[in-house]
Amino acid sequence: MLNAKSLTDYVNSIPPLDESMMAAAHARQDSLAKPPHSLGRLEDMAVRFSGMTGKLYNSIPHRRILVFCADNGVVSEGVASAPQSVTLAQTINFTRGLTGVGTLARHFGCELDVIDVGINASYDCPAVYNRKIAFGTDNIATGPAMTYAQALKAISVGIEFAEKAKEEGCDIIGIGEMGVGNTTTSSAILSCITGLSPEITVGRGGGVNDAGFARKREIIADAILREAPDPNDTVAVIAALGGFDIAAMTGAYIGAAKNRLPVVIDGYISVVAALCAARIAPACADYMFASHASYEPGYLHAVNALGLKPMFDLEMRLGEGSGCPIAFEIIGGALAIQEKMATFEEACINDDYLTEIRADERLQR
Amino acid sequence: MLNAKSLTDYVNSIPPLDESMMAAAHARQDSLAKPPHSLGRLEDMAVRFSGMTGKLYNSIPHRRILVFCADNGVVSEGVASAPQSVTLAQTINFTRGLTGVGTLARHFGCELDVIDVGINASYDCPAVYNRKIAFGTDNIATGPAMTYAQALKAISVGIEFAEKAKEEGCDIIGIGEMGVGNTTTSSAILSCITGLSPEITVGRGGGVNDAGFARKREIIADAILREAPDPNDTVAVIAALGGFDIAAMTGAYIGAAKNRLPVVIDGYISVVAALCAARIAPACADYMFASHASYEPGYLHAVNALGLKPMFDLEMRLGEGSGCPIAFEIIGGALAIQEKMATFEEACINDDYLTEIRADERLQR
Repeated sequence: MLNAKSLTDYVNSIPPLDESMMAAAHARQDSLAKPPHSLGRLEDMAVRFSGMTGKLYNSIPHRRILVFCADNGVVSEGVASAPQSVTLAQTINFTRGLTGVGTLARHFGCELDVIDVGINASYDCPAVYNRKIAFGTDNIATGPAMTYAQALKAISVGIEFAEKAKEEGCDIIGIGEMGVGNTTTSSAILSCITGLSPEITVGRGGGVNDAGFARKREIIADAILREAPDPNDTVAVIAALGGFDIAAMTGAYIGAAKNRLPVVIDGYISVVAALCAARIAPACADYMFASHASYEPGYLHAVNALGLKPMFDLEMRLGEGSGCPIAFEIIGGALAIQEKMATFEEACINDDYLTEIRADERLQR
Repeated sequence: MLNAKSLTDYVNSIPPLDESMMAAAHARQDSLAKPPHSLGRLEDMAVRFSGMTGKLYNSIPHRRILVFCADNGVVSEGVASAPQSVTLAQTINFTRGLTGVGTLARHFGCELDVIDVGINASYDCPAVYNRKIAFGTDNIATGPAMTYAQALKAISVGIEFAEKAKEEGCDIIGIGEMGVGNTTTSSAILSCITGLSPEITVGRGGGVNDAGFARKREIIADAILREAPDPNDTVAVIAALGGFDIAAMTGAYIGAAKNRLPVVIDGYISVVAALCAARIAPACADYMFASHASYEPGYLHAVNALGLKPMFDLEMRLGEGSGCPIAFEIIGGALAIQEKMATFEEACINDDYLTEIRADERLQR
């Protein structure tokens, strides 16, 4: 289990992107038979992927989504549209191939690792990895969500499952969650670490009513004032305001970066955890891809803070990791282009053409 | 071959969407174990697809992209970054699995039909369907691109290949093109039928230099004034300003709608042809999905005029149909959700939860 010192040591060992391989990938992209950068961000993704793995040609047949599941004490305040029991029901449903992400994962050929880091229930389901930190967090309307040690423990669980994915040969992972009330904890963390008002970061999550929506904002503003964690101590912020799911997801992003394992962000909770990881260790963001622009209003602030751009916008707000399977497909296409598209030479497009458009491109830069 | 009368008869027989099946699909979506509409436009796509096919459950294993290839006389004015010979080179490369769309189609498992509707070259390549109308269009800087009869003939070719796709069991098609100079003809048509100035609709296409860019705008403005086709006679606009590729693509959209075959728009040239089809027969738009937001500035105006929203934005501007394979994947995921995700009942999520979020949803509407 991590302590603050060992977490620092761990994140300090995250390798930088392989710049020379990215240069080689960029040169390869420019040699392909198309107007320069005409495949846009598909090209950028493949180049970044080369930087992550240190290989010019990559493919991602082995895909996995880590779904971290936990309960949040704050749901007793009426901030969520669903009762707490839904966290457990859906966690078990993940293992049965039901749910949104389960359906998409099966359709697109992705594995799911379902991890209980703090569901408020006892149950027997061997397909769920039991790493329960506690039976839900405490209520952030009245005190801190968890202890600092618990936050570190949950981060350790996330690292464990990223490392497990690497060891088991995954080519890419996605980070999802299930936890009734976790848009509340996400907005609390996002507001605290960015200084953005809850008026900006808070949305309706699963679909809370007007009274619950107002209460959600109020609780978040109050909790940030009362707990007043140092915004620069991200672990302290997670401990004060967070959920076990967000802590574990933060760890998963850190573990992915440490192991040069490309990682896909899902929606709002996922992007807040990604931002937490990047605050703990900026190099983490180098290994991330943003999938979809979540319908939750805080999403865009978090993804901008990460310096990333989502690939697609389908007004999704389900969470669970449901955006990851589609993102894997897009990334897979980008990698196929880099490896398999014909060069100008192979395409028998003559040198004059190449010279002409290269010159035009230089003029425009 | 069509004449004006038979085209009118054909488009008048386009069936409307199956409203009752869309209602059933909508009810199915609301029964799935997720907050209402939390899968956003994935839900909307699956509902629309049911309206198109008249079936509640759909899947799209058989996918094809129609690539219409033609040359444009206007390239002699220096408006394109590539020499005209690239049209033929890439057309042949499509049949060899090279090129951007070829690589993506192979990666994602889509067929390509490559159709010559007016390449300015003689060659021998049996894998290309020879439906050449002429050896390129005439130069729109000096006169009309083609005759009205030629425009109808090219539209007929598009219809032919949409019908062929339907007969051969395709579940969905995408519409791509290859034709050096075809962002010029597309912008000319778009400006003419929408009244938008070429200052707004014209971009750099494959990457033309500053002088070519200025000339491109000037030629378009002049051609619209000189030819002055009736903006409400879309076939006349295509004849005056268009390309054989755009005319054939227009026909393909019409043929798809007539045969209830869902059809995916690629980038800028593809969306201008889609808008032409919708101007000839508004019901055509019911059968279309927009894939990516092209980097070409005119794209957004055309897609807005169609009342559609692109699914993803990767700053692509290659054309060829290269956005279609990714869109097929997203649509495939949406269809899997509608058919295979668990209902609230199957997911053992209790009635109280269902009642509660339904009530919230009603409040917010």
